[in-house]
Amino acid sequence: MRPGLTRPDPADPRPPEDNSGEDFVPPRELFDQVLDAIEAGDQDRLDTLLEPMHAADVADVIENLSPARRRQFLTLWSGEIDGDILSEIDEAIRDEVVLQLPRSVLADAVREMDSDDIVDLIEDLDEPEQREVLAALDDSDRAAVEQSLTYPEYSAGRMMQSEVVTAPEHWTVGDAIDHLRNEDDLPDQFYHVVLVDPRRRPLGYVALGRLLSSPRTAMLRDITEDSFRPISALAKEADVAYAFNQYHLISEPVVDEHDRLVGVITIDDAMEVLDDEHEEDILLLAGVSEESSIADSVVETVRQRAPWLTVNIFTALMAATVISLFEGAIARLVALAVLMPIVASMGGNAGTQTLTVVVRGLATKSLTTANTWRIIRREAVVGMVNGAMFAVMMGAVAYIWFRDPGLSAVIAVAMVVNLTVAAVGGVLVPLTLNKLGADPALASPTFVTTVTDVVGFFAFLGMAQSFLL
Amino acid sequence: MRPGLTRPDPADPRPPEDNSGEDFVPPRELFDQVLDAIEAGDQDRLDTLLEPMHAADVADVIENLSPARRRQFLTLWSGEIDGDILSEIDEAIRDEVVLQLPRSVLADAVREMDSDDIVDLIEDLDEPEQREVLAALDDSDRAAVEQSLTYPEYSAGRMMQSEVVTAPEHWTVGDAIDHLRNEDDLPDQFYHVVLVDPRRRPLGYVALGRLLSSPRTAMLRDITEDSFRPISALAKEADVAYAFNQYHLISEPVVDEHDRLVGVITIDDAMEVLDDEHEEDILLLAGVSEESSIADSVVETVRQRAPWLTVNIFTALMAATVISLFEGAIARLVALAVLMPIVASMGGNAGTQTLTVVVRGLATKSLTTANTWRIIRREAVVGMVNGAMFAVMMGAVAYIWFRDPGLSAVIAVAMVVNLTVAAVGGVLVPLTLNKLGADPALASPTFVTTVTDVVGFFAFLGMAQSFLL
Repeated sequence: MRPGLTRPDPADPRPPEDNSGEDFVPPRELFDQVLDAIEAGDQDRLDTLLEPMHAADVADVIENLSPARRRQFLTLWSGEIDGDILSEIDEAIRDEVVLQLPRSVLADAVREMDSDDIVDLIEDLDEPEQREVLAALDDSDRAAVEQSLTYPEYSAGRMMQSEVVTAPEHWTVGDAIDHLRNEDDLPDQFYHVVLVDPRRRPLGYVALGRLLSSPRTAMLRDITEDSFRPISALAKEADVAYAFNQYHLISEPVVDEHDRLVGVITIDDAMEVLDDEHEEDILLLAGVSEESSIADSVVETVRQRAPWLTVNIFTALMAATVISLFEGAIARLVALAVLMPIVASMGGNAGTQTLTVVVRGLATKSLTTANTWRIIRREAVVGMVNGAMFAVMMGAVAYIWFRDPGLSAVIAVAMVVNLTVAAVGGVLVPLTLNKLGADPALASPTFVTTVTDVVGFFAFLGMAQSFLL
Repeated sequence: MRPGLTRPDPADPRPPEDNSGEDFVPPRELFDQVLDAIEAGDQDRLDTLLEPMHAADVADVIENLSPARRRQFLTLWSGEIDGDILSEIDEAIRDEVVLQLPRSVLADAVREMDSDDIVDLIEDLDEPEQREVLAALDDSDRAAVEQSLTYPEYSAGRMMQSEVVTAPEHWTVGDAIDHLRNEDDLPDQFYHVVLVDPRRRPLGYVALGRLLSSPRTAMLRDITEDSFRPISALAKEADVAYAFNQYHLISEPVVDEHDRLVGVITIDDAMEVLDDEHEEDILLLAGVSEESSIADSVVETVRQRAPWLTVNIFTALMAATVISLFEGAIARLVALAVLMPIVASMGGNAGTQTLTVVVRGLATKSLTTANTWRIIRREAVVGMVNGAMFAVMMGAVAYIWFRDPGLSAVIAVAMVVNLTVAAVGGVLVPLTLNKLGADPALASPTFVTTVTDVVGFFAFLGMAQSFLL
């Protein structure tokens, strides 16, 4: 089963094609053509352009339109929006799109969606639209969606789809295959047959590859996989994503509090959650709301950015207050005003480095209670070593610049103090936030840079006032 | 096939179990017990503790040990390290582990690994160890690994495994099932049967669920999936991960430059690349080397952190130089020294917000040539709006503090200028770096904060000097 090995000349190493991945996104011209067709009100042309595209790419086109163009587009083409496209559209604009869809189109779209995608859609809608979507579903789908919605947001119960392929544990491979051939309501994609007892408690699962390669007479219970790890419907989605990544899972059954099978989570959903979690971390670290999207309007964007800038103005005022304590010293030695931002900036950057590593360590569960002390010690030592290195460098620069050995010594010592404090703060702040149940990415940068600004200014200006004046 | 719907009481919404996902990581006590067993040199106890654990968790335990303990551990337990554990161990310490493994253990371990995992292992090893691993493989595995290694690092050719399940296009479902039942060298996990022509060019694939639910007489070519998207072995791994995520792929065939099948990439490998890419972005944005790991030593960590701090000291010196141009003004009006860090800090934060959104937009391909102008305009307007808001706020604070309407006006105008520059810089810097082929996450924060520091100090101190003194 191994492919024919065509061995290229090793003396001719070929670099990856550097087309910036343009192969994987629809070309710019296509977007321009869609714009032209919208302006011309040309429905047929839109069909020709968008029909061959993957639903995910059509959703991207819709997201990239300006709000006014998007309204025009939906007037022309909303009849063609199906369940696949709808589930791909970014949450930031999905309400807007749903509101503009003719009710019959929306009903058709949701009827063809998997229950997890419907749940994902319905969560973001207002009450009247929610009711409308639920009314469009057939009874068993509605029951499945309503069950999912009884579980808390961001839980496995919300991630799962209720469509599961099950078999009684006494079945043979032949029984399972015959059953699958006769069943016409199978999920679009499935990777395991889950063995259940008479009370629907999952007992194990059989991978489809194993099912296909085993004799018809083999018992299902004899060919189950080791990886089987049923997930509680109450588990947090971030933990589910972690488990999929850590244990290379492909699909796992979800059970309720009585250990009964209620659904299944597949790796593509886990991958999406992992992606969202990363996105959230990176945006929170930069002080941007985790709901931010490239499709947001100006008003939306201001609303997402202003809160953290407001927090920052207060912390900056704290630092300014520290400086004001030393106005007299600065008036007598203006070089202090010139050099003080360097100490603060180095502390801020060293602190950001450490806290980012710690936040990531927590997110990937590689930073655990088992190695916390080792990391605190390591970061403190790294802070001191870096502090010493940059103290020498900055001391030399300050001496060359101002020819004042006292000033040079003060900035050097302030550097060691601030980089050590930055390192320790960079570990302790996110760890403490995490212990308190807050997202360590959210407030860490603010706290840590406030600490390094205050300590940096205080150490530098305080020592200068005590020893130089 | 729908599960029995056990509907919990909706009046009793249950929050996600907040155990910080401890269910998904081995408990702390277990780690302590492993430590005790290592100290006692108790091999049997190690067996009892580690035997039932998943390979990924064993690898985590090994990573969490201090370097000295790890050496002791390997002396005791290296005989038990198998291919699964070896492929899970973090790259930061894998060399170290490989060097300590008895040669026969290493040979056994690699023989049971999939070709993609062997490639991943071998890439990081030094020449002599590479040869040793290759020598341990049987001929067909060695050929497969050597072929992968002819492709550039970070290409699809390095990600793929060569074990693919193929079928001629004229086969029926029955032919495929009989073939699978008779084949005893099947991959551990597979999700499709790939149809190939006589020259091994892939023509389509059949999902296993579809194969199982179709009658034996059905032609494979009639039940292929729409999602089929063969990947060039030269494609960049980041683009492959993007495609898996965007199009919800589960496994895709990889083809060489003659369109011949050379391997297959599965979603778990794509998920790992996506994870690594995110990790890299978040660490680069914080000025930390992307190779950083929680398992690194102090020396390693200093080496990863110092370069960016060195860059930062130079940029901080540039900002200090700007301040030094206005020493006279500061000496006459010390309030300037008190307030100037606020302008710079607000600019730095606003710039970081924008650049993070842009870097993420580029990484997720949601920022494309099609919407670049819209984003530049949006960010500029957002910068001005935020600038105006915080100008009013800061103007008021400055007036209350220093009772100087001129100073108040100057800081207000400087705020608008700096927040607008921050927004525009926050978009243009990463876009330009991306155009030049550099990683936009790498140098963006340095460039942008340098711009906002310099502009912030210049605008504020320059206007103060011109209008207030």
